[in-house]
Amino acid sequence: MKIFIIGIDGYLGWPLALHLRERGHEVSGCDNGLRRQLVQEEGSDSAIPIADIYERAIILGESNIHYNDVMDYKETEAIIKEIMPDAIVHLGEIASAPYSMMSAKHCAFTNINNIVGTLNLLHIMRDICPEAHLLKLGTLGEYGTPNTDIPEGFGMMEYNGRKDVFAFPKAAGSFYHWTKVHDSNNVMFACKIWGLRATDIMQGPVYGTRIKAMGDDPKLCTRFDYDQVWGTVLNRLCAQAVVGHPLTVYGSGDQQRAFLSLEDSIQCMTLALEHPSEGYRVFNQFDKVYSIRELAEVVTSVADSLGLKTHRAKVENPRIEKEEHYYNPECKKLPELGYIPAMSIENTVAQILKDLLKHKDRINLDVLLPDIRWDGSRRQSKMEKL
Amino acid sequence: MKIFIIGIDGYLGWPLALHLRERGHEVSGCDNGLRRQLVQEEGSDSAIPIADIYERAIILGESNIHYNDVMDYKETEAIIKEIMPDAIVHLGEIASAPYSMMSAKHCAFTNINNIVGTLNLLHIMRDICPEAHLLKLGTLGEYGTPNTDIPEGFGMMEYNGRKDVFAFPKAAGSFYHWTKVHDSNNVMFACKIWGLRATDIMQGPVYGTRIKAMGDDPKLCTRFDYDQVWGTVLNRLCAQAVVGHPLTVYGSGDQQRAFLSLEDSIQCMTLALEHPSEGYRVFNQFDKVYSIRELAEVVTSVADSLGLKTHRAKVENPRIEKEEHYYNPECKKLPELGYIPAMSIENTVAQILKDLLKHKDRINLDVLLPDIRWDGSRRQSKMEKL
Repeated sequence: MKIFIIGIDGYLGWPLALHLRERGHEVSGCDNGLRRQLVQEEGSDSAIPIADIYERAIILGESNIHYNDVMDYKETEAIIKEIMPDAIVHLGEIASAPYSMMSAKHCAFTNINNIVGTLNLLHIMRDICPEAHLLKLGTLGEYGTPNTDIPEGFGMMEYNGRKDVFAFPKAAGSFYHWTKVHDSNNVMFACKIWGLRATDIMQGPVYGTRIKAMGDDPKLCTRFDYDQVWGTVLNRLCAQAVVGHPLTVYGSGDQQRAFLSLEDSIQCMTLALEHPSEGYRVFNQFDKVYSIRELAEVVTSVADSLGLKTHRAKVENPRIEKEEHYYNPECKKLPELGYIPAMSIENTVAQILKDLLKHKDRINLDVLLPDIRWDGSRRQSKMEKL
Repeated sequence: MKIFIIGIDGYLGWPLALHLRERGHEVSGCDNGLRRQLVQEEGSDSAIPIADIYERAIILGESNIHYNDVMDYKETEAIIKEIMPDAIVHLGEIASAPYSMMSAKHCAFTNINNIVGTLNLLHIMRDICPEAHLLKLGTLGEYGTPNTDIPEGFGMMEYNGRKDVFAFPKAAGSFYHWTKVHDSNNVMFACKIWGLRATDIMQGPVYGTRIKAMGDDPKLCTRFDYDQVWGTVLNRLCAQAVVGHPLTVYGSGDQQRAFLSLEDSIQCMTLALEHPSEGYRVFNQFDKVYSIRELAEVVTSVADSLGLKTHRAKVENPRIEKEEHYYNPECKKLPELGYIPAMSIENTVAQILKDLLKHKDRINLDVLLPDIRWDGSRRQSKMEKL
């Protein structure tokens, strides 16, 4: 299958390219280098050293990686016209809640980049490759934390004695997460009116450093962000454990989210690509629900087994979010296609810690504590060591 | 009350300014002139001659109208800081479904303009006037045409035996209408995290040429668009009746929508302003549900009583939409505040026809038939005279 990955230089994009290549697919993609640039703007960098995009192009075949921004309609259209992919994976979005909450400018940039990028892609697919399958990355954060179970995209609901199927819930917790709702709505609409085919993946936060297709080749490593803006929670806790920084749990730590490993994320996206959608469908993509406190406990216990002493800290929550809530997203469709989690969370965390220990000097202590607050201020959160 | 209107030069903005001034409010506002420009780009113009924005500034007081784009954050912030309004009315959006469906570029522009404009305003309100009340214009088109009643923004729903209150339905029928959903979601979120106060008005299509505050002064008239891009359906049917063009009903004409007159729209927005919201609330704003065919029948019969002979035509539907559907939006909150429709639809249509007859030479026959299709082509719809 010819698969084109937008955001091929990213945390998920690069390992997905390696894995799909290993499975015999013809893989190409594009990236505008924005993630590398924005992480550096925050004074941070990937904790694990990675090849630059030109070295990556040599690995994948030079004509297979295009330095291109999906905001550039004409250039993107020309590239896709040349490749005529069977599937397009859209990972080319700005994916940070704190980034979008930093200022009106950051909020606007996140909105324009994500929404217009996706709209461009939809129009290009309509005109160039309407039969191609779009795999678009959404987030479980689009749903919020409702008091009901969370269906995979749609549920039959009754109101005033009449029934219909509704796309629900939509209750995101940051302007970034709302851009993902906006994108999902636009993709759903394009599928409806233009007959496009798309799988919209509502994915939980991902953790991990490796997938099998990387082997032990350091040139094949994927980036690993751990800072307050770009690091997802479990990856950040692992980085903290490695440098002896208190593990920062925001608020009560009772917030529940649904997590999965990098290996599982790549496995699930591959399953979706190899079983394409007819019209618009939604997958909830995760392994298991944990509270943030439980994650910190996993890191503490695994670190302990590796001889690393950790301390936990309660950090004033910079976000405005429910800390105690019901949480039960459904997850039936990917298991039906054959998804079985690859490794236990403990084994994956052990692997992350071992990989990070080799590069602990690259972890910048100044970017671990949050000062981007949902109220718009930049006051550093109070931290209370436990 | 100090009220600031974004989009004060528009079809609704200008009469709202006149009406609020008459009620003793201090009215000011801004406009970037975009509507005038975009209508001209389609080869059309307001059927009724209107004062230019500088003449309007003289009428309202020169310092009360700012030539400004809400996309310009710093300038908008400075203006609002100087005025410190008690309420802000946001009418400064691109409001055309066909415009947004014309091309990827038009779609992107509609998205950027509407979404970033609203996000800018929310950030400015947070920082400058968090107590002010935002009156934002949404559209009933955000809901689509579900098989259930349509609540005013929120309904209690049950899923898998558990209940919660959800914002639903969200099922727009054009990329423009989706921008309004995106805006509503962003405004709802800003109210939640920043404690802002907003009334989000889900308004049906408006028809009419006049409100009382205009009297008979031609300088006080508001614009009247009738072309395929900017004219709403009943206004367009009236323009067709006046020039002897067949009344164009798209598809079967069984599509139902909820309409209200210009006088009612201004009355309702005034009620919302004079009864501000505590947090985020949604009003469904309309007088009555009609099918498109019923509207054509009203125009035919009123035109006949004025001695105008009309013909009806069935036009191949350029939109992709359900033509037969259940439709029952709720409307309780505005009547509770005292909303009583000002005039019958027949009397309003008679007034529109009389006003247009004076300017029938300004109606361009070339812009009445649709060629902007939801499938992305620009083929003119087939018309079958009935």
